[in-house]
Formats: sequence, structure tokens, C-alpha cells
Amino acid sequence: MDITQAMQAVESKMFAIVDSDVSVLRDASHHILSAGGKRIRPRLVMLSYAATGGQDVSYAVPVASAVELVHTASVVHDDINDHGFVRRGRPSVNAIWGRTFALLTGDFLFTKVYELMAPYKDLNVVLAEATIALVEGETLQAAAAKEGNLNWETYYQIIARKTAALFKAGARLGAGLAGATHEQVEALGRFGFYIGLAFQIIDDILDLIADSNQLGKTAGIDLAQGKGVGSAYASSNGGAIVAERVAVADDPLAAIKQKILEGDAIDTARTQAKSLVEQAVSELDVLPESTAKQELIELARLIVDRDH
Amino acid sequence: MDITQAMQAVESKMFAIVDSDVSVLRDASHHILSAGGKRIRPRLVMLSYAATGGQDVSYAVPVASAVELVHTASVVHDDINDHGFVRRGRPSVNAIWGRTFALLTGDFLFTKVYELMAPYKDLNVVLAEATIALVEGETLQAAAAKEGNLNWETYYQIIARKTAALFKAGARLGAGLAGATHEQVEALGRFGFYIGLAFQIIDDILDLIADSNQLGKTAGIDLAQGKGVGSAYASSNGGAIVAERVAVADDPLAAIKQKILEGDAIDTARTQAKSLVEQAVSELDVLPESTAKQELIELARLIVDRDH
Repeated sequence: MDITQAMQAVESKMFAIVDSDVSVLRDASHHILSAGGKRIRPRLVMLSYAATGGQDVSYAVPVASAVELVHTASVVHDDINDHGFVRRGRPSVNAIWGRTFALLTGDFLFTKVYELMAPYKDLNVVLAEATIALVEGETLQAAAAKEGNLNWETYYQIIARKTAALFKAGARLGAGLAGATHEQVEALGRFGFYIGLAFQIIDDILDLIADSNQLGKTAGIDLAQGKGVGSAYASSNGGAIVAERVAVADDPLAAIKQKILEGDAIDTARTQAKSLVEQAVSELDVLPESTAKQELIELARLIVDRDH
Repeated sequence: MDITQAMQAVESKMFAIVDSDVSVLRDASHHILSAGGKRIRPRLVMLSYAATGGQDVSYAVPVASAVELVHTASVVHDDINDHGFVRRGRPSVNAIWGRTFALLTGDFLFTKVYELMAPYKDLNVVLAEATIALVEGETLQAAAAKEGNLNWETYYQIIARKTAALFKAGARLGAGLAGATHEQVEALGRFGFYIGLAFQIIDDILDLIADSNQLGKTAGIDLAQGKGVGSAYASSNGGAIVAERVAVADDPLAAIKQKILEGDAIDTARTQAKSLVEQAVSELDVLPESTAKQELIELARLIVDRDH
């Protein structure tokens, strides 16, 4: 399987499925899709499929597209709740079309997932459970932000559900589509879960240290709302950084950022992310050697080595 | 099939499926479910199932529950967009938990639909298409409200998608589960579609003439936002009632209501709803006589005869 060609097929499928005669839904969906994004999740589906013997690209493409649309829908809704006005270097759906249409566009994308997954029978359960976990994770995060309280355990619960569950599902779906053995499906599931955790930890670190332009989304929002790895680690390290502080200080964001950057919270988090990725890579020992397996390893390492 | 027992099983299933260790999602879901609602859609599924020979209640219950959860999710999101603070005679999810958690609760309910439907293979497509139509209908409505412009054709497009499509799907799903003939599935689909149109027309009329307490939701909201049957009919009748007026006049709502109530818009709409219901009932000629068929006819007539 040529992964570049496969990923182009995923792009085409996503654009095709969100077509609608209701122009706002079509335009807003195209807007968020054409802004790009790293497409790690559908890549994970396709590579897991290929690494376990899958050969029919067209059979796996709708599932890979569905996984990315779950993520895309959650991003659109997230930008409503977080008042995020920049996403992937462009104005968010929320910023252009307003809250009402952003909410409906997210619903539209979530619903298009059903349509894509309908033919895949039992695999539907895998994606349904991951999507429920994602929504639960987002809710735990909003609840923690509201309480202005985030410890390491809650942070782990949040990222496990809102991010790692979908990565895990993506890898399992790819393997399931290929008819992989139970052992391979489980190993790839753990691979996905670990790199999902690592991905979110790195994402939160980058959110802390990057400015708006570099990261392509309104930076500092996650921090300002008391979520993100920095406050979790700061909190677990005995730091007293809570969300409320942000709202009251003069230049609160800069001050808190500085505090975390000076401490060892970020180094600790990055070390943990690297260790998760190596743990993930070792899970792939059950797979035969292949180009796809090598590309899975590269994908995993890229997650901790990226700067955006 | 005892429809009362079947509907109790639907209630139990809905409460069970929305369980979550994330307390906000569980509590908000229980809140909106325990507020009641007419449960017309799941009743339509169960009766269509029974009227075409279905006998295993437990097989149809998850599908009937899924159909009601699609509606429930849309209601929760609708109350965010409409700033509706009363729903079914109680504070809306939005009013109690705020916008962020209401958005996530709606996502949670939409996602639970996948979980319920996962085992039903091809029938997934039927519900997926109806849910997409529902979101498209809501979007057309928001767009029309924003433009302050609603003619009869747009009004028909809106109610066909946001309401009638799910009624149609419910009836088709019930028949599909029972292994009904193609002719029966199609006839029941039309039955559902027609009573869905009638239901929404009557709902919009009631919204116009009922006060807050009677209807159990913030009355006049649909009107205030330039949607609903009144402004559609008024507009098609050459009336110049548009949403913007509401915002500027002294007691705009009362004035507009009076204007519509004095005209023949409501009578015209009610006549049309009645005619739709009779058209629907005639579709049932292809079904053998049964208690369930009689209950479908009663359900249809109740839709136009209700006062809430």
C-alpha cells in the first residue's frame, strides 16, 4: 500500500461525504477540512491496516475518514466552548459562521460518521465507544476547568479519553479491517493508546510554549482554562497554579507560562511522552516486518519530535 | 405486542444507555429524559414493527430508543441555539448546566445512538440519513431566521428535514426490523413522513397560541426567530411579518401573534395538517388489520387533535 496515495483517497472521501445542498454545512465543513491538520488518526488506521496484511485501500478509506471526522467534529465544537477563533492557522468555523452554525456543523460531521461506518457492522461499536470516551473526556476537562482544579490523575483521565481512546480505536479498526489476529488487534490498540497519550502531552506542551502563529490556533486557551499538561504537572508538583489566577492578574498568561517554563514540569512531561512512545513501539514486535510497520514506528517518533 | 409495556422497555433502555461515570453527562441526560416528552417517535417505531408482524419487543426496543435519542440530542442543542430555558415544563439542560455542558450532553446523546444502532447493520443507513436531514433542517431554519425571511417553500423544506425525515425513518425502521415487504416499508415511510409534517405544523401553531406554561417550553421563541408556521403562512399570504420586527416594537410578540391569529394563517395550516394525517392513514391500507394498525391510526389522529 502506498500511504501517500491512500491518504489522498482519505482526503477525497472526506470532502465527498460532507457535500450537502445546505450551503453553510458544506462550506463550513470544507473550510475546516481544507485547513489541513496532521491527519495522524487516519494515517494510523491505514498503516495499521497495511501492517496486518490489509491490501484493499478502498475498503479501509471510509473508516479512516470516519475516524478523522470524529476528530474534526470535536474540534469544531471545542472551538465553540473554548472561544477559539484561530484553528490550523485560519479562522475557526465559530469565528466565521458564529456559534449556531458551528454547533450544527459539528453535529453534521458527527452524523456523517454514522453514514461512513454503516456498512462496517461490528466495527461500529469500536468507533462508537471511542467517540463516547472523547465526549466524556472533553466533559471532564470542562468540569476541571470550571472548578479551576487539575491534578495529574484527572489530567490522565482526560487525555486518555479525549485523545488516546480515538487513537486506540483507529489502530484497532485498521487491524480489524485487515482480519488481524486477536493478539495483533490488542497490541495495535495499546500502540495507539500510548501514542495518543504522548500526542496530547506534547500538544499541551507546545500549547504552553508556542505563540499563536507558530501553533496555528489561539495559544494559551487551554492553559487559561486551567487545563493542559502544564497546570497538571505544576499541580502534581505542589505548584499552586489554578485557572482563576489567569483571570485576575495583570498579564496572567505570561506570568503563569513563565512559572511553568522555569520549573521542571515540561521536562518531566516530555520525558514521559518519549517513554510512552517507546513503549508503543515495543508493542509492534508481534507484527511481521513491513514498510507499513516501519512507517508506524516513524509516525510514533514524529509525535514527540514535532514542534507544531 | 403490548405497546404500554414496550414503551416502558424503551424508557428503561434510554436511561440505561446514557449511564456514565462522568456525572454531568449522566445527570443532564437523565434530566432531559425524565422530563418526559410525548415519545411519539419510538411509539411509531414499535407500532410499525408490530403492525408488520414483528413480535420480539426486545429486538426493536434499542432502535426505538435510538430514534428518540436523536430527537433528544437535537432538542438539547436546539435549546442552546434558541436560548430556550424551559423545556417540557422544566428548566432546559442549557439553563441548569450552561452552554458548554449542554453542547457536550447533546454530543453524548448523539453518540449513544451509534452504540445502540451498531448491531443493526444496514438499518444504520436509514437512521444516519434521517439524522443528517434533521441537522440540515435545523441549519436551514437558522439560516432563514438569520435572514428574517421565511416563505412557504422554505418552511416546507425545513419541517420535511428537521421533523418528518425522522418520523419517516422511525416507521421504516420498525417495518425493516419486522422483515416487512418492500411495499409495506415504503407505505409506512410515507405514513411517517406525512404525520411528521402534520406534527410540526401543529407544533408551530401551538407555539403561536400557547403561553409558556401551557406548552412547557419558552413559547414564542420560534416566532421571535422568524421561524414557524405562522410567519411562513403569513409570508405566503402576502403578510410582511419578519423576525426583525420583533426586536424593535414595544410589545412585538403580542402584536405579531395577534396579527397572525386574526388572519387565516392558522386555520389554513390546521386544515393542511388534518389533510396530511388523512393521507397518512390511507397509506396503511396495505397493512393487514391489527391492534397495532389501529394504534397507528390513533397516533396519527392524536397529532392533530392535541392541545400541547
